[in-house]
Amino acid sequence: MQTQHTAFPCDMLVAAGILVTQDDDRRILSDAALVVTDGRIAAIGPADALAKAYAPRETLDLSGCLVLPGLVNTHGHAAMTLFRGLCDDAPLSVWLSEHIWPAEARLDAAAVSLGTRLACAEMLATGTTCFCDAYLYVDAIADAVEEAGMRAVISQGVFEIENAGFKTVDAALNAAGALTDRLAGHDRLRPAIFPHAVYTCSAKTLTRCADFARSQNVLLSTHAAETARENEDCLQANGARVIPYLNELGLLGQNTLLAHGVALDAADIGILAATGTSVAHCPKSNMKLGSGIAPVAALREAGVTVALGTDGAASNNTLNLISEMQTAALLQKVAACDPTLLAAEAALDMATRDGAAAIGWPELGRLTVGGPADLCALDMSRPQLTPAFDPVSDAVYAANGGEVACTMVAGKVLYRNGAFPGFDYPALVAAFKETAARLTRPGA
Amino acid sequence: MQTQHTAFPCDMLVAAGILVTQDDDRRILSDAALVVTDGRIAAIGPADALAKAYAPRETLDLSGCLVLPGLVNTHGHAAMTLFRGLCDDAPLSVWLSEHIWPAEARLDAAAVSLGTRLACAEMLATGTTCFCDAYLYVDAIADAVEEAGMRAVISQGVFEIENAGFKTVDAALNAAGALTDRLAGHDRLRPAIFPHAVYTCSAKTLTRCADFARSQNVLLSTHAAETARENEDCLQANGARVIPYLNELGLLGQNTLLAHGVALDAADIGILAATGTSVAHCPKSNMKLGSGIAPVAALREAGVTVALGTDGAASNNTLNLISEMQTAALLQKVAACDPTLLAAEAALDMATRDGAAAIGWPELGRLTVGGPADLCALDMSRPQLTPAFDPVSDAVYAANGGEVACTMVAGKVLYRNGAFPGFDYPALVAAFKETAARLTRPGA
Repeated sequence: MQTQHTAFPCDMLVAAGILVTQDDDRRILSDAALVVTDGRIAAIGPADALAKAYAPRETLDLSGCLVLPGLVNTHGHAAMTLFRGLCDDAPLSVWLSEHIWPAEARLDAAAVSLGTRLACAEMLATGTTCFCDAYLYVDAIADAVEEAGMRAVISQGVFEIENAGFKTVDAALNAAGALTDRLAGHDRLRPAIFPHAVYTCSAKTLTRCADFARSQNVLLSTHAAETARENEDCLQANGARVIPYLNELGLLGQNTLLAHGVALDAADIGILAATGTSVAHCPKSNMKLGSGIAPVAALREAGVTVALGTDGAASNNTLNLISEMQTAALLQKVAACDPTLLAAEAALDMATRDGAAAIGWPELGRLTVGGPADLCALDMSRPQLTPAFDPVSDAVYAANGGEVACTMVAGKVLYRNGAFPGFDYPALVAAFKETAARLTRPGA
Repeated sequence: MQTQHTAFPCDMLVAAGILVTQDDDRRILSDAALVVTDGRIAAIGPADALAKAYAPRETLDLSGCLVLPGLVNTHGHAAMTLFRGLCDDAPLSVWLSEHIWPAEARLDAAAVSLGTRLACAEMLATGTTCFCDAYLYVDAIADAVEEAGMRAVISQGVFEIENAGFKTVDAALNAAGALTDRLAGHDRLRPAIFPHAVYTCSAKTLTRCADFARSQNVLLSTHAAETARENEDCLQANGARVIPYLNELGLLGQNTLLAHGVALDAADIGILAATGTSVAHCPKSNMKLGSGIAPVAALREAGVTVALGTDGAASNNTLNLISEMQTAALLQKVAACDPTLLAAEAALDMATRDGAAAIGWPELGRLTVGGPADLCALDMSRPQLTPAFDPVSDAVYAANGGEVACTMVAGKVLYRNGAFPGFDYPALVAAFKETAARLTRPGA
């Protein structure tokens, strides 16, 4: 009985069949366990030793699972789940002007909240624990993510076209300021600013956003070089390609994350590397919209941090980061006809550690003692994860996202075997569907 | 009580929330039902009307599901699940000569049986009901598929390199003949012949295989034009590119299905169209091995039937046709920077009707009265299938395969909510893992 007397108390003991830590040594442990206290990892070690050493209030049996750090989705517009499947296979201009913009014009805070909550459910069910969101009605987004229990970097969108969220750039910047005040010291939510793109923001607006990000010490993110056309237009309008233009305006740097980065030449890549700017690669969105193939292998080679993003569900049409990392790896290989490019470990890094670095939250995307207890677990009994020769290969090349059996954020289980504990999912879906129909079919 | 007296007996009444028939009119029905008798569909119609008209022995409630025809996987090597994750991200020559071939040399009938059964489980769990397989030990494959309850076209591999399955081409052709005799009149299994490729078969062997296919009236399938290198080598060795060379030898025609078809020029496409030859497009394998992007849009434009295949799990690494149809659509769009190419309906056709046509089994891949009761059902309560504006878009762009809640072949439910009825899945996995370890780590 001596063991019981000397055991340390803890909140939870998590047994992990295989634990892919993604720590600096990329340790992979079998028959391991994690000790969780106050939302953080208190210990990592052999399951039997930790079971003897700790007296947990709760246990979580993931001994049949491949446990990964929670995935980090670095670019998206969560509430656009409301527009999933609204219009596919159309030219970009038709998609935007005839379908997405009219529907977005009818958005309000309640709709954005429902769309964001559904997106949280989808991301949790596919292993994502933290996401970087850029949209309107940031207060509603913050409320929704708070309620869902996830982590997020919530970015106020800024642009100079008519929209449902704000009337002027001043109003948008004020909202960003209010959000920054509201989230000060928050454990799971961080504020950010998101000037939409060089083609929707004036030079002055871009500069104001950069000043805001610097003065408030928040992440600045923007769509950049998504297509070759964007560079041509920027050259014509501003006398420079997108990357040098952003650099000239002071938008690049270690606190900046560019979404897409598809149409980049060697000089652009050099600027990104020199300024420490990161890229959120969104392969499935780039493929579906026919934007092109981002030079991910070349960016990484140059030392640029490349993370992964799903983009919004109107152009993907899923927020499944497991599928995204698989697609990222396959796409680089086929683009250069070189099967050695972007190996499985690199793709997993992009979805975890590099994602965390890109959003300036480096303790995420890895499972280490002292770090946040954010994880996802893949059910290894599924046929596609058998025979399980290589857990990293299986997570990247064999998994589809449907194997996720458990997702935990800050020590709380938010998804388990198809269900969302502490979350009335069916009620959410009912309200979401009603709102989606109202936004897209106003006569309905 | 009059209704009960006049109701027709039937085996099963299946309620379908949304039924995507893939019939000639591509009808999509809501709140529908299917009546199943003797493994075939006896009626399709409104759920309430059919519930009154029929007295089923059994009911199956898929009213919360999006029901599709069972998917048809037209190219693969099922037993290679044994080698999943054995070696990734390596040059083709290293992958083959240092990893796959040594492991394959240790194969035997029992191992092939286990590998095939695990592959059947994986395909059923992701909605595939019929597959075209090419490997060794075809008797073991036929036994395994028989036991799993699936449909398959089982192709005897033929090539002139040392292997574990046969010593001579004569022996391989004899095995193909014996398989053809064995499967004569079989409801779910059909025989075929698979000369491996132009670089592993002599002209004489290729011709003998074509003669065999013609005389026995079975499908001939072969790897063709998987890479640009294959054309260069064929030109040097045989004075022609792969497609004209195969045509010259009499291998092309309506009974021929070419796997991959990546490196095709306009003349090649013209030959395929003129001869009525079909192509099994394997996008994820082509991407992972860095083979290139098949000209699927151009092939379809020319009138060539293009189906989908997963290839083997050593080069994919999954047998998930839902993920494959998504990748096929996205890849064509990005290859040409044109989002209108290979729309969702075309991708679904490739995985259903066109797959059925390509393997010469046209009653598959659609849900029609009188046709086989082969279907899969996606759980529409999953976040990624919400709000459900467009079922075809959702199946192609939003689903990942993990939503499959039910798969039925010939009226029998072979997969239901994660379980395999009438199949000891855990015992299979245990035996499979032991065999996979023995084949790949002979010292273990």
